[in-house]
Amino acid sequence: MEERRTETEESAWWRYWLALRLVRGVGNVTYRELLEQFATPQAVFAASASALTAAGIHAEVARAITTFDQWHAVDTELKKITRTGVRLVTRADQDYPVNLTHLHDPPPFLYLRGALVPEDRVAIAIVGSRFASAYGKGMARDLAHGLVERGVTIVSGLARGIDAEAHRAALAAGGRTLAVLGSGLDIIYPSEHRALAAEIPTQGAVLSEFALGSKPDAVHFPYRNRVISGLTLGTVVVEAAENSGSLITARFALEQNREVFAVPGPVTSMRSRGPHRLIKEGAKLVEGIDDIVNEIVPTGAPARSAPPAVPAVTLEPHETLLVGFFGSEPVHVDALIGKSGLGAARVLEVLLAMELKGIVTQLPGTHFALAHEWADNKRS
Amino acid sequence: MEERRTETEESAWWRYWLALRLVRGVGNVTYRELLEQFATPQAVFAASASALTAAGIHAEVARAITTFDQWHAVDTELKKITRTGVRLVTRADQDYPVNLTHLHDPPPFLYLRGALVPEDRVAIAIVGSRFASAYGKGMARDLAHGLVERGVTIVSGLARGIDAEAHRAALAAGGRTLAVLGSGLDIIYPSEHRALAAEIPTQGAVLSEFALGSKPDAVHFPYRNRVISGLTLGTVVVEAAENSGSLITARFALEQNREVFAVPGPVTSMRSRGPHRLIKEGAKLVEGIDDIVNEIVPTGAPARSAPPAVPAVTLEPHETLLVGFFGSEPVHVDALIGKSGLGAARVLEVLLAMELKGIVTQLPGTHFALAHEWADNKRS
Repeated sequence: MEERRTETEESAWWRYWLALRLVRGVGNVTYRELLEQFATPQAVFAASASALTAAGIHAEVARAITTFDQWHAVDTELKKITRTGVRLVTRADQDYPVNLTHLHDPPPFLYLRGALVPEDRVAIAIVGSRFASAYGKGMARDLAHGLVERGVTIVSGLARGIDAEAHRAALAAGGRTLAVLGSGLDIIYPSEHRALAAEIPTQGAVLSEFALGSKPDAVHFPYRNRVISGLTLGTVVVEAAENSGSLITARFALEQNREVFAVPGPVTSMRSRGPHRLIKEGAKLVEGIDDIVNEIVPTGAPARSAPPAVPAVTLEPHETLLVGFFGSEPVHVDALIGKSGLGAARVLEVLLAMELKGIVTQLPGTHFALAHEWADNKRS
Repeated sequence: MEERRTETEESAWWRYWLALRLVRGVGNVTYRELLEQFATPQAVFAASASALTAAGIHAEVARAITTFDQWHAVDTELKKITRTGVRLVTRADQDYPVNLTHLHDPPPFLYLRGALVPEDRVAIAIVGSRFASAYGKGMARDLAHGLVERGVTIVSGLARGIDAEAHRAALAAGGRTLAVLGSGLDIIYPSEHRALAAEIPTQGAVLSEFALGSKPDAVHFPYRNRVISGLTLGTVVVEAAENSGSLITARFALEQNREVFAVPGPVTSMRSRGPHRLIKEGAKLVEGIDDIVNEIVPTGAPARSAPPAVPAVTLEPHETLLVGFFGSEPVHVDALIGKSGLGAARVLEVLLAMELKGIVTQLPGTHFALAHEWADNKRS
């Protein structure tokens, strides 16, 4: 399915993806069910009404599919896509985000500027108030900076305040960042973030599930928030009023079995009400990036919220070297330094990267153990 | 045992309590065991060595008791006590704090200025850094003020910073407050708190388990902290460095099965490290007094930390009136307002007081139910 396509082939391919989304009665959940049964939108449109209902699709929806006649609207959208240089990333594409595939209602495709890379799986959302304080903005920057230094991709919503600080700090630190919009990719909101939106694709991506030309309607934002949390292993709420959009993102994170983190602040600040409420409800209190990284590193006994099935991981040469020194027993860091001859700082750096990739787990007393899957691989 | 004693009788009574404390090998735990077996220190001294060892007392300690000869030191201490106008509250006295009796190692007696009243059972400790910020001091004041308005006694350690703010706010709001010292009652530390220490007994008590003349040695403070938490239903840590005395108090509170509360603050403040650590370890995050009061109110299913056995509670006339309207079913607040003719505000006020006393429990939808013991009383 994933072969190099010519531009014309690509347009033909996208055409059916766009069309199926326009069918009355086909939301994200039905779209997912249709793909599970028929593999591609093209196959869906090729199916007979009886084949569709046999596959469990409601008769009315089956009829809407077989009688679909809005190809003109599809082609108009397709032309816009080509003209604006935007790309569609469909569920069938290899770079469709793995984390989103675990959602109940994954977007069947995303409009994208920039690129998604496999490392974006280790992503954290940093979200919060549009009216953040200097403290909140500083925390957003510090966390984004520290996380990208550990190879974590920062996801946020391109909003004023916390979102923008997180994106900017990730860019400034040379890291990756993804901005999820509640509008079409051709409508940047707020408009003063146009330069930021233009810079992000150089170190990440700006993406949206909304068609080009879609306005930043209030009703879009909960959907946008669900994608923000869904792209990540966890969401950090930095400052947020009670009952704000950031808390909705946190609630989605919980529903999606992802971690929720919250940065405390002075009780006297209204903006810390949201994070404090989340902490009371069980969110992890965040003082620094260690509080985040420690939770998202896969351990022997997976955390409540670890997303299932780690995809194939590529090893760096030094990582391959270190893996060679592990047996079934934990190994002390000094032994790894001695055997590898890499020097303490480099060994610790490599081990950290391996921890983030889920290859090793740190145990008390600076011992490290191979994660189960890797230990199994070595045994077999 | 608890009859009105003359001053001479009182001295004679205290003499044995002081003496038993001076016996080599008799700490708080052995003291408690001896009282459980022999009821009074006088009876302990009257017992033979074989009676003591038969009661499970180590032979060497039994010998130290039967050969005790430091009565001169006892009489010197007794004279000091009389001269300074301090009182001893022994375990055998009715005003010995009920909350302390649940400790593994309760002080056999306390040196006291002021008075302890039954209402002091509903006490909360407010502790924290000697070097508190304006934010921390403000929080200590607000919490102390709010809690005494709900009839809660504020316990603290008379230290600079958070402690002093909590005591002062409790006094200013007309509430009760207890100060526990790590020195003898005749040595006020820090000395600038002498006026505060002199005022507290007018609305509470200053107390210590250390003999008159004891210096505020560092080694005393963990013992002092254990009494602070032990006197209360829960301890609130407002601001505290990591590894500070306040965290020791919090740890004692946990060991004593009392609640631990912590006030969050900016992550950038070293003084909030302690509270944040406690929250990570499971302490309740406190934004205001409701977060405290909701935890210490006894409910149908008692919280992990509710101290056992609520002592006899005296009902105010309006409380007695309202109790009369309860049956085995929850009652809506409107019914209580209607039947009592007291007016909504007064009924809510009385219900709150009853909740704090553990007489009623609030249920969803502003229904109230009699707590089990009270319902049982009504039934029987």
